[in-house]
Amino acid sequence: MKIAIDAMGGDNAPKEIVLGINKAIKEFTDIEIILFGKEQEIQQYLEPNARVEIVHTDEKIEGTDEPVRAVRRKKNASMVLMAQAVAAGKADACISAGNTGALMAAGLFIVGRIDGIERPALAPTLPTVDGKGFVMLDLGANAEAKPEHLLQYAIMGSIYAQKVRGIEKPKVGLLNIGTEEKKGNELTKKAFELLKDSNLHFVGNIESRDLLQGPADVVVTDGFTGNMVLKTIEGTAGSLFSLLKKTFMTNFKSKIAAGLVKNELKDLKNMMDYTEYGGAGLFGLNSPVIKAHGSSNANALYNAIRQANDMASHKVTTIIKETIQKENEITKE
Amino acid sequence: MKIAIDAMGGDNAPKEIVLGINKAIKEFTDIEIILFGKEQEIQQYLEPNARVEIVHTDEKIEGTDEPVRAVRRKKNASMVLMAQAVAAGKADACISAGNTGALMAAGLFIVGRIDGIERPALAPTLPTVDGKGFVMLDLGANAEAKPEHLLQYAIMGSIYAQKVRGIEKPKVGLLNIGTEEKKGNELTKKAFELLKDSNLHFVGNIESRDLLQGPADVVVTDGFTGNMVLKTIEGTAGSLFSLLKKTFMTNFKSKIAAGLVKNELKDLKNMMDYTEYGGAGLFGLNSPVIKAHGSSNANALYNAIRQANDMASHKVTTIIKETIQKENEITKE
Repeated sequence: MKIAIDAMGGDNAPKEIVLGINKAIKEFTDIEIILFGKEQEIQQYLEPNARVEIVHTDEKIEGTDEPVRAVRRKKNASMVLMAQAVAAGKADACISAGNTGALMAAGLFIVGRIDGIERPALAPTLPTVDGKGFVMLDLGANAEAKPEHLLQYAIMGSIYAQKVRGIEKPKVGLLNIGTEEKKGNELTKKAFELLKDSNLHFVGNIESRDLLQGPADVVVTDGFTGNMVLKTIEGTAGSLFSLLKKTFMTNFKSKIAAGLVKNELKDLKNMMDYTEYGGAGLFGLNSPVIKAHGSSNANALYNAIRQANDMASHKVTTIIKETIQKENEITKE
Repeated sequence: MKIAIDAMGGDNAPKEIVLGINKAIKEFTDIEIILFGKEQEIQQYLEPNARVEIVHTDEKIEGTDEPVRAVRRKKNASMVLMAQAVAAGKADACISAGNTGALMAAGLFIVGRIDGIERPALAPTLPTVDGKGFVMLDLGANAEAKPEHLLQYAIMGSIYAQKVRGIEKPKVGLLNIGTEEKKGNELTKKAFELLKDSNLHFVGNIESRDLLQGPADVVVTDGFTGNMVLKTIEGTAGSLFSLLKKTFMTNFKSKIAAGLVKNELKDLKNMMDYTEYGGAGLFGLNSPVIKAHGSSNANALYNAIRQANDMASHKVTTIIKETIQKENEITKE
């Protein structure tokens, strides 16, 4: 398995990207890595390994670049070259911690959509209090969605949960503002019908207040709502942790308390750290494309490599292709 | 000022409702209260006061009742009689902690919409880390919204923030999945244009991750997204607090720590308690209608009464009426 990686994407590039690679290449003995970026900077951190190849380029896409324009104009950007390697069959999957919009554009224009998939979807695995996590999509690849797209998201999410996360019969939920069948807006009402009539293990509507309790293995929603909910979880957790920090600094007694539970609080914070589950897959493209979190550290990158390797070796893309093709044939009949 | 109250709505009715009234009637010497519900049960808790009148009824709307049907069929339900009192001019405002959908239906069918307001909106004041809070609407009165509705929400929210919350020039934000002008779906893109061209103090797009930091005094969104975000905040905070509780029970040391910061943690939890700001106003109706939280205790009810009194005495409804009328005249020209 060959994985193409953008060495220059994210807040901690290339250092943490390369450190993650050092760890992964030792652990996964059947993978090879092609790394795109500034060779000199990469060499500072890279432990020499015959299975890691560097393709040098000076150009890179910035976090502030306008995504589509950047992908079109920066023809030698590390992210663009990475996507081209996958498109040309030189790599089986790719990973970037860079500009999310640009990676989606590169995925769409360079790696390409699977025939029959109308909209690729951004699909991270979110944390749950029981530590199992669940796949949620679309978290922002498309601001608008039709009911049929939500069904495709559910199919792709189920295949991923089955093949990569090892869940035999993944429970699929529809994110909605009530649990009853007739709840929601036009989109969710119609999507509910489609999901109910599908072969998936559909468990009905899921309310956002229950998400972290893990009510399903796959949760589908439109990209606008999904992005909104993801950022709300991040913002609420972030605000609470900073308030908690302040609380522990209130007085002498509270500072002692902080010392006593320091490790346990760290565990709690780690539990909310969804980089443990890898990056967000961009489902619906011709090869696995993984968006690692912008603030990825070495461990997050390592997990993203494991994930890319799992997706490629379990042939997630091929299975999605075949399933969607069958689905579309049935619909046409 | 006369306030009609549904004594039978919510998880702790009628006890906590009546205890809240006992407190409010002493504090606000210019108000009168008409209370609807089971007289005997109410009398158990009510401190006799010449300014409190009980209207007995045995019927009530349950939390599980189908909202519209319940309001239509249960003609003597405490909530229905309460709304009728307002519609008939026997009271200036009303409060219920009961079935939210039913209260919205009672508001719409019995109290009635302000001329020119297309959709009433559910508008609670949400907490922020600085303790100031902000008004957010619509949090679920309507699952669908047009850009013009969001403009009306912004106008109503601004008037409320100005008159009741005492903010001279309320900052209005549009909830969106990015801060840049062109971000979002069709709805937010068009609403952005309308808000930019309005007389309001529009500060642009607001991301849900920043909400608890209080980036605006009024935040507008469609009811589907608003409800989703509200429940995500509740769910995330709830999950984190229960994980925190578990964390403190891990071992001997952590249990000692828990004892040391007990009071500070309680303060932290109270900070997230938005019943301090009163209930959620149903804006756009002919009189103030307040939805108190279903789990309202006496203090929440007391705050809702203060809020209803403020809305009525500052003539929020009349000002909304006049502003919308002017706005609609300008649009027609």
